[in-house]
Amino acid sequence: MKAVVYHGPNKISYDEVAKPELDLPTDAIVKVLKTTICGTDLHIIKGDVPEVESGTTLGHEGIGIVESVGSSVSHFKVGDKVIISCITSCGSCRYCKKGLPAHCEDGGWILGHLINGTQADYVRIPHADNSLYPIPDGVDDDSAIMLSDILPTGFEIGVLNGQVKPGDRVAFVGAGPVGMAAMMTSQFYSPSEIIMIDVDDNRLEVARQFGATTTINPAKEDVQQRIDELTQGDGVEVAVECVGVPATFDICQKIVGKGGHLANVGVHGQSVDLQLQDLWIKNIHLTTGLVNATSTPMLLNALTAKNKSIEPDGLVTHHFDANEFMHAYEVFGNAAKEKAMKVVISCS
Amino acid sequence: MKAVVYHGPNKISYDEVAKPELDLPTDAIVKVLKTTICGTDLHIIKGDVPEVESGTTLGHEGIGIVESVGSSVSHFKVGDKVIISCITSCGSCRYCKKGLPAHCEDGGWILGHLINGTQADYVRIPHADNSLYPIPDGVDDDSAIMLSDILPTGFEIGVLNGQVKPGDRVAFVGAGPVGMAAMMTSQFYSPSEIIMIDVDDNRLEVARQFGATTTINPAKEDVQQRIDELTQGDGVEVAVECVGVPATFDICQKIVGKGGHLANVGVHGQSVDLQLQDLWIKNIHLTTGLVNATSTPMLLNALTAKNKSIEPDGLVTHHFDANEFMHAYEVFGNAAKEKAMKVVISCS
Repeated sequence: MKAVVYHGPNKISYDEVAKPELDLPTDAIVKVLKTTICGTDLHIIKGDVPEVESGTTLGHEGIGIVESVGSSVSHFKVGDKVIISCITSCGSCRYCKKGLPAHCEDGGWILGHLINGTQADYVRIPHADNSLYPIPDGVDDDSAIMLSDILPTGFEIGVLNGQVKPGDRVAFVGAGPVGMAAMMTSQFYSPSEIIMIDVDDNRLEVARQFGATTTINPAKEDVQQRIDELTQGDGVEVAVECVGVPATFDICQKIVGKGGHLANVGVHGQSVDLQLQDLWIKNIHLTTGLVNATSTPMLLNALTAKNKSIEPDGLVTHHFDANEFMHAYEVFGNAAKEKAMKVVISCS
Repeated sequence: MKAVVYHGPNKISYDEVAKPELDLPTDAIVKVLKTTICGTDLHIIKGDVPEVESGTTLGHEGIGIVESVGSSVSHFKVGDKVIISCITSCGSCRYCKKGLPAHCEDGGWILGHLINGTQADYVRIPHADNSLYPIPDGVDDDSAIMLSDILPTGFEIGVLNGQVKPGDRVAFVGAGPVGMAAMMTSQFYSPSEIIMIDVDDNRLEVARQFGATTTINPAKEDVQQRIDELTQGDGVEVAVECVGVPATFDICQKIVGKGGHLANVGVHGQSVDLQLQDLWIKNIHLTTGLVNATSTPMLLNALTAKNKSIEPDGLVTHHFDANEFMHAYEVFGNAAKEKAMKVVISCS
């Protein structure tokens, strides 16, 4: 079979590799129908995630058909169409038991990281009963793929951690796929202002199509001044950091109001200068986290609701066939120029 | 009457000043029986709080007897014995209405800061109905004074923000009065490990008397290694920062475990280096805040309970008469050498 294989920094190729087999009774083998590329994959390729070994198949998102199941898998059978969650969880370790499967002692984020991932014709899914989700009728493929990672990440780590409430003024810093997913799912809670902040005017335009009530380009405007005008000097109730660099974190800590929430979603590679001399007195809540993916069933309910309010398939800007995998990486790696958000690759 | 007056950096004196009068119908004048000195007063004296004008009477803690009340004060009458809360609140602005009287638009922390304070024979209390608390029978004076500031601060900003739960391993960094108050009130929630971290061995001994199950002196031991041993490598569920300098904040961010809480109580004068490259993935909750003092009635219930479990009067190490006010400041300013925790001054 074919797979996108990491061969050390700045080197990937679409190789012929061995088809995975069931290792443990809790495994399933899934024939991948469609997968996508995450910003995290680009970090891996740059060499920023050194625990990824050369020879690893990349990818932690996708949908597929169950091809075989181990003897103790009870919730899935051959032929089921499933979402592959980016989080593998055993369901029985102490972190799983306290609702933190992101930190599962025999899982967490391992696909395309510590074990072979989804950018392949087939993938082995450990703890299949807890790590796959059946795709209900009526959910299109592109929407389903968004539930592997970005929709639950934006929702859990941005919206739920940020405790978005009706009437809140909510700002998202970073209009990439996860920022859009956070912005989209924040609308479940009816905020009064949905503010998207990004330096890319094209992405701001997309944000407006997805419900942003205000957009701000920090390269052209003073963000703090605009937020002060919008909120009568209060600052926002919730600021969601969706990039992962000090400058975007800094915007968040400047615009969050007294009693507000700063929900960090971005993956950071360095420390940030937390302005505690200003923030100690402001009764703020700052949260961080890797997605637990515990909201996936709830998000599936939202996608199948008669009064469905979100259209995550709209985040998919490009479709490719498997033989265009390397081109898909090029397009996604030049997202601004290509006006790319999420790219979907059909594997088999 | 006499009062401790701030005359600019490094200059205070115990002066003859005008007795306060009722300014507004919501005011009360309280004859101060006893007051105390806060670390914040020392910051003011150093010049760290520039909004304090020369000529201001210091102090935001104390107990007293209501001497007169404005026409719209309905909950207090002349002769009532009261706790003076460090937080003045109107009860009707938007911050008060959302449970954040710390940020009251006509109050907050103003006593001994923006208006004359409690280190005096008499003090004017704005919004008396919301800013005073009757002292129930059976509550001794020293305990009552601890409810002006340090007990609700340690409890609300440390314990409640940190969401201490039964069985949690909880670490307090800083065994000063507020750290002790946080540690003391954490015991309402039955943590399994109560860890006090401080460089002063005398204060660690006091912490053990007040319930610390483990004490660590960072000048003599590797804190992270001790915490790892104590928690089998997990880190603590709750780390409470009770000092307000980068080094103590850093201890907290190193010892907090996945899914844990870092409750900042300390008043910071500079930024800190937040290790987001490690913390982004750890699903932590970081909180800050000025006390709202909304827990004062609850803490009074705890002090009058038949099964009373806390003895905040034990935090008072020294008593002085009003004519020793300047000496009381000297003793409190040399807390380590004098083995001082809270000093109580009888005013009248």
